[in-house]
Amino acid sequence: MISVTEARARILAGLAPTAGEIVPLTDGAGRVTAAPLIARHSNPPADVSAMDGYAVRAADALAGARLTLIGAAPAGHPFAGHVGAGEAVRLFTGSVVPEGADTILIQENAAVADRVVTVGEPPPAGRHIRRMGQDFRAGETLIPTGQRLNPRLIGFAAAGGHAWLTVHRRPRVVILSTGDEIALPGDPLPPGGVVSSNGPALAALVRVAGGDPVLLPSAADDSRAIGAAADAARGADMLVTTGGASVGDHDLVQSALAERGMVLDFWRIAMRPGKPLMHGRLGDVPMLGLPGNPVSALVCAILFLLPAIARLSGLPGDPPPAEPLRLGAPLPANDLREDYVRASLLIQGDEGWIAHPYPAQDSGMISRLARADALIIRPPFAPPAAVGEVVPGIRLAPLGL
Amino acid sequence: MISVTEARARILAGLAPTAGEIVPLTDGAGRVTAAPLIARHSNPPADVSAMDGYAVRAADALAGARLTLIGAAPAGHPFAGHVGAGEAVRLFTGSVVPEGADTILIQENAAVADRVVTVGEPPPAGRHIRRMGQDFRAGETLIPTGQRLNPRLIGFAAAGGHAWLTVHRRPRVVILSTGDEIALPGDPLPPGGVVSSNGPALAALVRVAGGDPVLLPSAADDSRAIGAAADAARGADMLVTTGGASVGDHDLVQSALAERGMVLDFWRIAMRPGKPLMHGRLGDVPMLGLPGNPVSALVCAILFLLPAIARLSGLPGDPPPAEPLRLGAPLPANDLREDYVRASLLIQGDEGWIAHPYPAQDSGMISRLARADALIIRPPFAPPAAVGEVVPGIRLAPLGL
Repeated sequence: MISVTEARARILAGLAPTAGEIVPLTDGAGRVTAAPLIARHSNPPADVSAMDGYAVRAADALAGARLTLIGAAPAGHPFAGHVGAGEAVRLFTGSVVPEGADTILIQENAAVADRVVTVGEPPPAGRHIRRMGQDFRAGETLIPTGQRLNPRLIGFAAAGGHAWLTVHRRPRVVILSTGDEIALPGDPLPPGGVVSSNGPALAALVRVAGGDPVLLPSAADDSRAIGAAADAARGADMLVTTGGASVGDHDLVQSALAERGMVLDFWRIAMRPGKPLMHGRLGDVPMLGLPGNPVSALVCAILFLLPAIARLSGLPGDPPPAEPLRLGAPLPANDLREDYVRASLLIQGDEGWIAHPYPAQDSGMISRLARADALIIRPPFAPPAAVGEVVPGIRLAPLGL
Repeated sequence: MISVTEARARILAGLAPTAGEIVPLTDGAGRVTAAPLIARHSNPPADVSAMDGYAVRAADALAGARLTLIGAAPAGHPFAGHVGAGEAVRLFTGSVVPEGADTILIQENAAVADRVVTVGEPPPAGRHIRRMGQDFRAGETLIPTGQRLNPRLIGFAAAGGHAWLTVHRRPRVVILSTGDEIALPGDPLPPGGVVSSNGPALAALVRVAGGDPVLLPSAADDSRAIGAAADAARGADMLVTTGGASVGDHDLVQSALAERGMVLDFWRIAMRPGKPLMHGRLGDVPMLGLPGNPVSALVCAILFLLPAIARLSGLPGDPPPAEPLRLGAPLPANDLREDYVRASLLIQGDEGWIAHPYPAQDSGMISRLARADALIIRPPFAPPAAVGEVVPGIRLAPLGL
């Protein structure tokens, strides 16, 4: 058995980011840049007014001075002329400051009648002017490679003049559920059968993580069926299986894939839930074998598949972020397996998050995992932890999980 | 001018959740349930083994006892017979416990040879059995109405036997950018023009929030063009405009929509960035008028459009969650406008998040908003805040923003 940290490092070590592709700007949110995004022009593209008011010369705009209004420059219609001594041009927020002017008299400080602007409080030179390139300059890197795009960055890319984005292709993750006992939801349930929930849950997780899931038809507990299904994973960025990893005396998925040439890396990790976790490579395709138990499968997916998809997407693939959580109930000492304890969270004033571990941590309880807010991380051989102690935990909602 | 809190309450008050629609289970992540999800069967569907081992009778399984192996029940293949006195049936995790047996002898505590199982450490009655319905029972509500679905809940719904989900339709949000000066990214930029970044950024934000954006062609600063575009919003769940809300002497969007019968609710709020924020109703369609300035538009969208889409989607529409952040730099006293201060965040050991407000809060700086990690909330007339003080702030990354 190897540790969670070592397992994750070994999985990530075999993964390279997908190649870049071009997507339209409006499809870019959630994708990861595969090339730096360079500003095509400066912002503002010229000196512009930050306020509604009048473009004037500071030397003229003394208190009480009367300036001649020679024109207006609404946004998008720059004033073509020149602001001379004793002159003013009407401007609005974002209007280009016309030649000759060197400050903005805001409208609150001006009285206007008969094309004459009378100065109230006089503006110092340069007031309320946003300088050309003050936000960013043409040629500047706006967004580096390897950054996940969000709506603000989409706006930033737009402002930089980009209608197209170069991003990493969504990793294609092929998902194979195995087991004689599983039936898809809605399909007839055979005697002794259970509803197959891993496939749909993993497909949703892959999508939330930015990947492109392919749900294969389930394979029976049969070496040929599993092997044949594995052929469908050719060309995928990753193959994920569930089940078959510790069916009694031998491991069906392992043996079936070994017949197809899988090079096994490891197949057991020191964690709970989820001891059987297989990792290998089937030709060019990295392979992750999750347990069949739905709770174990999802917890393992959060810990290993999520960083793997991030790495394939062009990100480093950091572990899901742990935050300090204060215990609302005690936890016993831990054994040699790193434990991921399902817990509910309550926010409690300035104390922050209080975590209440569920009393029963049976990995058969799908309902508990479904309703949990966090996974408390209990390292191997952690001593007992008392109420009020701060422990690390993974909050699930901020991860979209 | 009204407060941020009042403005949000007034916007939300006019919104009703969209009707329900049916989507396949695998398309359900991110959607909000429009009906409770009831378990179609119990889980486990029968008493099952939690371990690999042997189904036995506790009364027989004393230390050293020799039991006759009468069959096996791999997962999906229940043993049809009855376990009598002195008998054992091979089981695996998830196998149905056959009639007659009342406990599980785990394989680590058994020695097997020639169809005889010799008991090592004897199991008490009921050991390692997951009882029928222990996780959930047929008829139980698994997921209530009004819950946003995540991958775990998709798995939960699958486990409950559901291939279809009843969820609220994605709210259709029609986005109209206005302004003579704006050009789409990649399109030729006229003199004095700026690249239109609000449309793409807002479309991305609507999608991240679970809505369905429709980007209208931009409208010039012209009452007829704006009015005609507004016709395209008929049947939408919300119309969002940007720009035109305070162009000099009069408000173009306001007047253009008033001509089409818009009932105005309010049009100025006491916040920074983003004083001009319009709210009204155009026939059946609620309308939100955002400022044209990209920083103001996006901050207003985070504060008002995001909760609005949540409310339309069947959620309460809570304000974006604020968390306690410790200041890494001082902040001056605030005036009457609630201020949303762009800041970067660093995590610092047990102290949690340290927020560094950007020194320049110019709303012309798209780059600052694009690179910010949080918005520090400064209530009206907040006194100066010193380094180390804890202030409320909205972290953007966990919201997918």
